Amino acid sequence: MVILLNFFVIGAGNCTNVIAKDLFSKVSNVYIFDSSKEKVEELKKVYSNVIYSDFSDIDKLNIDYVIECASVDAVIRYSEKILDLNTNYVIISSGAFGDDLFRERFMEKLNVSNCNVFIPSGAVGGIDLIHSLGDSVEKIVLNTRKSPKSFGIDTFEEKIIFEGGCKEAIKRFPQNINVAITLALAVKDFEKVHVIITADPYVKSNSHNITIESKIGRYSLNLENYPSDNAKTSLLAPLSIIGLINKLNNNFKVGV
Amino acid sequence: MVILLNFFVIGAGNCTNVIAKDLFSKVSNVYIFDSSKEKVEELKKVYSNVIYSDFSDIDKLNIDYVIECASVDAVIRYSEKILDLNTNYVIISSGAFGDDLFRERFMEKLNVSNCNVFIPSGAVGGIDLIHSLGDSVEKIVLNTRKSPKSFGIDTFEEKIIFEGGCKEAIKRFPQNINVAITLALAVKDFEKVHVIITADPYVKSNSHNITIESKIGRYSLNLENYPSDNAKTSLLAPLSIIGLINKLNNNFKVGV
Repeated sequence: MVILLNFFVIGAGNCTNVIAKDLFSKVSNVYIFDSSKEKVEELKKVYSNVIYSDFSDIDKLNIDYVIECASVDAVIRYSEKILDLNTNYVIISSGAFGDDLFRERFMEKLNVSNCNVFIPSGAVGGIDLIHSLGDSVEKIVLNTRKSPKSFGIDTFEEKIIFEGGCKEAIKRFPQNINVAITLALAVKDFEKVHVIITADPYVKSNSHNITIESKIGRYSLNLENYPSDNAKTSLLAPLSIIGLINKLNNNFKVGV
Repeated sequence: MVILLNFFVIGAGNCTNVIAKDLFSKVSNVYIFDSSKEKVEELKKVYSNVIYSDFSDIDKLNIDYVIECASVDAVIRYSEKILDLNTNYVIISSGAFGDDLFRERFMEKLNVSNCNVFIPSGAVGGIDLIHSLGDSVEKIVLNTRKSPKSFGIDTFEEKIIFEGGCKEAIKRFPQNINVAITLALAVKDFEKVHVIITADPYVKSNSHNITIESKIGRYSLNLENYPSDNAKTSLLAPLSIIGLINKLNNNFKVGV
């Protein structure tokens, strides 16, 4: 299946390498911008349709999807120009929307743009359930478990090291930011998302537990990712970009 | 917010009454077909934009969304004509796709149609997670708990009354069909979906537990719906239609 689409990907790191495996062979051209041109050259060796492009040239190209696979900073820096393009814009570093000023300016601009912005489910799931529940959601509790080592502490038993609101959590633990913000964006209310961060010496990889309390029922989702080569980034996040793009380009779509 | 859209809704029962509350005031015209014209008249008293229409007139109208809120039989009976309309077609009775012959004919016709078909998450969630995991999914286990009464049995302790493949389950327990088939459609493989049905005297309402085993992690989702007026249908199913339509008509979309 070759879809006649052009991608513009921001970032040529781990996330881009994961999505490349499934998506790049399906599309026409993949323009990639990264501050390291060498990383793009590496991808070019494997995928013949990869073309290095400066971000400043983006408006001269005919792009169907801009895919951000870089960082919160990149989202903040490049979004304004991308929203002028009237294209599809996929943002994996949803944490950018934790910045109130940025979020307000972004939404104002989106209101007068023909862009479609997509925030994939990232390292979590059940976003469909949050959409279905809508206003009936009363509270979402995200409990993230990581090894004590990742917080620079040493403990033999599990220990809650943070418990509080979404915004406070992202200030103090920015490495956990995307998951909490994606949940807050789905439920459209930062106040409804409560975060617990647990140091757990028995956890093999990062795990998340999400509990959704609503007027119509109680739902919980447990995500236990097996350890992967790159422990810093969940493999599930780039996979959710693949899932999203494949779904958008299929005329039989399952799920909200 | 009024979206300039016309709906054609099949069925005027409980599901339609739920979606009406959120969606009908947002759109131009809502044509409804039901074998009971009286039910449509009842809706018309509340929503002034409701118009009764025979299904046979559907091709004379200008429809943006056909929304099936009726039954597996309705999906099987009406889909062929709907796929000729080149419109958006939302199907809540996903169980229809458990019929191999129907599914094959439907997919063949969809391949040469400009329709977009949407199967909302229905009474479950985590369909986004299944999309993200893609081919790495090895097995999905759906464990549905209902009161012993709903199976016409009497027991003081929980009892597994069925364990087996998805297709066998839907033959023997057709009332549970939509959830199992939606999972199978999401993972694109009926063989990967395993069903357990438990009679549980301590369950207050139907509950589902979904476990997803994949190459990259293990995920489980627990759905506990509070008892509602209409115990036969999960309230979550019509709510997922609302979530879907609202998401499709918003240019900031969260989730796969």
